Amino acid sequence: MPEINELFNKKLKVINLGLESFHKDLKEQKVESIHVNWRPPSEASKKLSALESTSISEKIEKANKEAIDRLLAAEPIIVGIGQAGIDIPGMTKHTILHAGPPITWDRMSEPVKGAVIGGLIYEKLATNEEEARTLAASGKIKFDPCHHHKTVGPMAGVVTYSMPVWILQNKTFGNYAYCTLNEGLGKVLRFGAFGPEVIEKLNWMEAVLAPVLKVAMVLKGSIDVKTILAQMIQMGDEGHNRNKAGTSLLFRELAPFIVKTNFSDRIKAQVLTFIDKNDHFFLNVSMPACKCSLDPLENIEYSTVVYALSRNGTDFGIRVAGTGDKWFTAPCENVTGLYFPGFDETDANPDLGDSTITETAGIGGFAMATAPAIVQFVGGTPKDAVNYTTSMYEITCAENNAFKMPNMNFRGTPTGIDFRKVIETGILPIINTGVACNRAGVGQVGAGIVHPPMKCFKDALSYFVKKTVK
Amino acid sequence: MPEINELFNKKLKVINLGLESFHKDLKEQKVESIHVNWRPPSEASKKLSALESTSISEKIEKANKEAIDRLLAAEPIIVGIGQAGIDIPGMTKHTILHAGPPITWDRMSEPVKGAVIGGLIYEKLATNEEEARTLAASGKIKFDPCHHHKTVGPMAGVVTYSMPVWILQNKTFGNYAYCTLNEGLGKVLRFGAFGPEVIEKLNWMEAVLAPVLKVAMVLKGSIDVKTILAQMIQMGDEGHNRNKAGTSLLFRELAPFIVKTNFSDRIKAQVLTFIDKNDHFFLNVSMPACKCSLDPLENIEYSTVVYALSRNGTDFGIRVAGTGDKWFTAPCENVTGLYFPGFDETDANPDLGDSTITETAGIGGFAMATAPAIVQFVGGTPKDAVNYTTSMYEITCAENNAFKMPNMNFRGTPTGIDFRKVIETGILPIINTGVACNRAGVGQVGAGIVHPPMKCFKDALSYFVKKTVK
Repeated sequence: MPEINELFNKKLKVINLGLESFHKDLKEQKVESIHVNWRPPSEASKKLSALESTSISEKIEKANKEAIDRLLAAEPIIVGIGQAGIDIPGMTKHTILHAGPPITWDRMSEPVKGAVIGGLIYEKLATNEEEARTLAASGKIKFDPCHHHKTVGPMAGVVTYSMPVWILQNKTFGNYAYCTLNEGLGKVLRFGAFGPEVIEKLNWMEAVLAPVLKVAMVLKGSIDVKTILAQMIQMGDEGHNRNKAGTSLLFRELAPFIVKTNFSDRIKAQVLTFIDKNDHFFLNVSMPACKCSLDPLENIEYSTVVYALSRNGTDFGIRVAGTGDKWFTAPCENVTGLYFPGFDETDANPDLGDSTITETAGIGGFAMATAPAIVQFVGGTPKDAVNYTTSMYEITCAENNAFKMPNMNFRGTPTGIDFRKVIETGILPIINTGVACNRAGVGQVGAGIVHPPMKCFKDALSYFVKKTVK
Repeated sequence: MPEINELFNKKLKVINLGLESFHKDLKEQKVESIHVNWRPPSEASKKLSALESTSISEKIEKANKEAIDRLLAAEPIIVGIGQAGIDIPGMTKHTILHAGPPITWDRMSEPVKGAVIGGLIYEKLATNEEEARTLAASGKIKFDPCHHHKTVGPMAGVVTYSMPVWILQNKTFGNYAYCTLNEGLGKVLRFGAFGPEVIEKLNWMEAVLAPVLKVAMVLKGSIDVKTILAQMIQMGDEGHNRNKAGTSLLFRELAPFIVKTNFSDRIKAQVLTFIDKNDHFFLNVSMPACKCSLDPLENIEYSTVVYALSRNGTDFGIRVAGTGDKWFTAPCENVTGLYFPGFDETDANPDLGDSTITETAGIGGFAMATAPAIVQFVGGTPKDAVNYTTSMYEITCAENNAFKMPNMNFRGTPTGIDFRKVIETGILPIINTGVACNRAGVGQVGAGIVHPPMKCFKDALSYFVKKTVK
C-alpha cells in the first residue's frame, strides 16, 4: 500500500496554509483543520524585508522620528491675502496650476478640463469653451501641479494668475503655502463648472471678497490656524469634508477686523454673509495649513513617511520624505458615495483634488471618528467612523499631540503615514471627498469615501529600496 | 435541642434581603448565599403606589404625553433686545429679580447678596456696599424670582430695571422669555462680584452692546434658536457649561447685521470683539430658549413632568406641570468640582442659578455625552459623560427629536423629567454648573457637577398625591 494511502487511512489533523476555501471544505466534511492566514511572499514583501537589516532599519527609524518631529512641530498661521500671479513662485499669465501629480491636457479628466476652460475665460484668454479648449491644447499654456508651487487646490485645484490666495506660513520653519479662496457649493470652478455664474462669482471674489479680507488681515496681523484646527477637531469637524466649526471660528477671528476696514457697510455685510453661507470656507485654509506643515518633510533621507497624497482625477500620486519630490502614481479609484438627486456613479469622475493633504497631515478621513455626521453620507454609522480612524493607527507613525478626538478619549489623530506599514498591513489610507461630474461644466454630483491605489505605495517601495539598499 | 440549633446544623442556603453586608460576610465564610436588592417600602414608594391605580395612571400618562408633545413642539426664536424694566412684566425700579425659588434678603446666600449690591449700585439706588445692604434689608426693595416674570438668570440671576435683555418667543405657543446679556467670565455680577469694573462693564453693556444688538436684531428680524441648539449639540456643546459652538453660530448670524447698523466701525468692532472673547455668550440665549419651551407645560393637570429646576444658592426648587406654579424646595447641595488656583471647597457657595432650566429641557448635563470636555473638569472621562447621559434616560419621558448626539449614534437627548421615575429609581438629575464664592464680591471659584436634593421630588409627590388621589 503506497504511503499516501496509509496517510488517508489515519485520522487527519490538517493545518491549512493559504487559500481558505480548502479549510472550509474540510470543515464541511467534519475534518479537524486549522487555517493559517498565509500568503507566499510577494515581490513587495520581499522588498520590505530588504529594509529590515539593522543598519537600514535604524536609519529609517531615525529619519521617521525626524519627519514626525517636524510635522508635529509645525505652526501654520495665516499671514495675509495675496494674488496667485504675484505671490505664488513661478507663475506666469499663461501658467495654470492644477491638483494632483503632473498631467498633460490630453490626459486630463473632464472636470479638470472644465475648470481650466473656466480659468482661461476668467483670465480673458478665451471667450468661450471652444476657444479655451483650442488654447489649452495649443501648448501655449503651461500646466503645472499646485504642489510644485507651494500650493494646494481642492478638487480640480485650478489656480490662474489673477486669483486671490490665502498666504499661510509655517512659523516653525518659515516656509509658505498658498490656496485660492473657497467659492462655496453648487456650480463652482473647482468641480469643473465654467458657466457665466461661475465666472461672475470669481470676479466678485477678486474685486470684493479678497480686497476686504486682505485689509482685514493687515489690521489683524496673523491668525493661528493650528489652534483653530485643534478646536474644530473637538467640535465635530475633520477638516476635509466637514469644516463648519472651523469656518465659524475663522469667521469670529475675521469679523471684528473686517468691520475696522474702510469699505462700505454694504460691502462688509456682503463679505460676512458670503462666508457665513459657506460652511466649507475654512477648507481652503485647512489645506494650505497641512501643506506648509508637511513640506518641511521633503528630502529627509531614509524616511518612509508620506508627505503628499494627491489626485488629478486621472492619476493618484504620492510623495515620500526619503525620495524627495518624486511622484509615485497610479490610476485614480472611483469613490464609494452618495449622489445628488438626478446623478449616479455613471456620472462620477474618479477621485480628484489636493485636499488629501489633510489626510496626509493626520486629519480628514483619519479623524473621521470625531465627525460621524460624514459617514452618514455613505450609509455608515458613528461606529464605522471610529473604526476608520482606529484602523489608520495601523499605518501611521504617531498620535497627534495637538489634534485630539473627544469621543476617542481625547486620543490624538493617527498622523504620518509610513508606506511600509501600508504595504505590510494591506490597509490603505481612508479619504473623505467630494465627487465631481465626469463631464466638464456640470459640477459636484456627490460625496463619499475612497482610497489611494496600492500601486503608488509599492512603486515608492521599489524606488526606495533601489535608492537605499546598496 | 431547640429548632434554631437544628437549622444551623444543616447545610445553609441563604437568601439575603436588604443590607448587602450580611451577604458579604456569608460569602467570606463560604456559605452559599443569594443577595436580593430590596428595601422596605418607604413613605415615598407607598405614595408612588397610590398613583398606580388604572384610573389615575392613565390620566398621568395622557397628561405626560401632552407635556412632552408641547415641549418637543416648542420653537424658540430670538425676536429682539429689550430692557428689563420695560419689557419684563411686573418690574418696577425697586424690583430685583433673582435666580431660584422665592427667598428673603436675610436668607440669601452671599453671592446673591453681592449681585443685589452690584445691582443697586448699577441702578444708582446706592453708592456703596454698606448703603446697598441697608437698602436691601429695609423692605423697600421687592425681591422676586426670575421665574415669576417669564425670566431666567444664570448664577445669582439678578435682573434690575435698566438691564438690557434678550427677548425670546416660543413661536408655537406665542409665549415669551427674557434673559440679561452674558457678561463674560472673571469678575462678574452673576457670580456675586460688584466692584467698579463690574459696574463699568454693565454700563457699557447698557450703553453700547445692547443698542447695537437691538438695531442688528431689528434688521435681522429673528433668529431660530432651536436650529442653533440642534447644531451645537452636534458640535460638542451641551448648552449649559459649554456654549462655544452656539456662541460661534449666533455670532455668524449677528455679524452681518451688526455691520449694517449705523454705529461707528469702532463701536461695531468693540461689540463683535466682546462676543468673540466670551464663549459663554450663548448661555443667556439657550436658557430663555429652554424657559419659553417649558413654560407651556405649566398647569397640565395630572402631569408628573418637571418644568423647572432652579436654585437661589440657599434653596433648590422644582415645579411640576401637574401642580402649577408651586415650588417644592430643599436646601441646595454642594457642587463636586474643580477649583481655580487659590480656592477650594471651603470657598464654594452651594448650588446656584436658573441655568438648570437647560437640564429641565433635556440639554446641559443631560446631553453631557456630546460634550466630554466638561467631565474633564471634575476628573472624569468621556465614558463617564456617556454614562451620565445614559442614566438620564431612566428618569425622563422621551428622547428629543431635535437634539441628537453623534457619539450616541445620533440618539436624542433624554428629555422631560418624570418625578415619579426619580423617586422610583433613586437617580437624581445631573447638573453641570459653575461655582460662586460664598463671600459677596469675589466671583467664580470653580465649576463642577451637582444634583437636586431628593426632598424636592418627594415633596412634589406628596402634594401631587393629595391633590389627585381623592
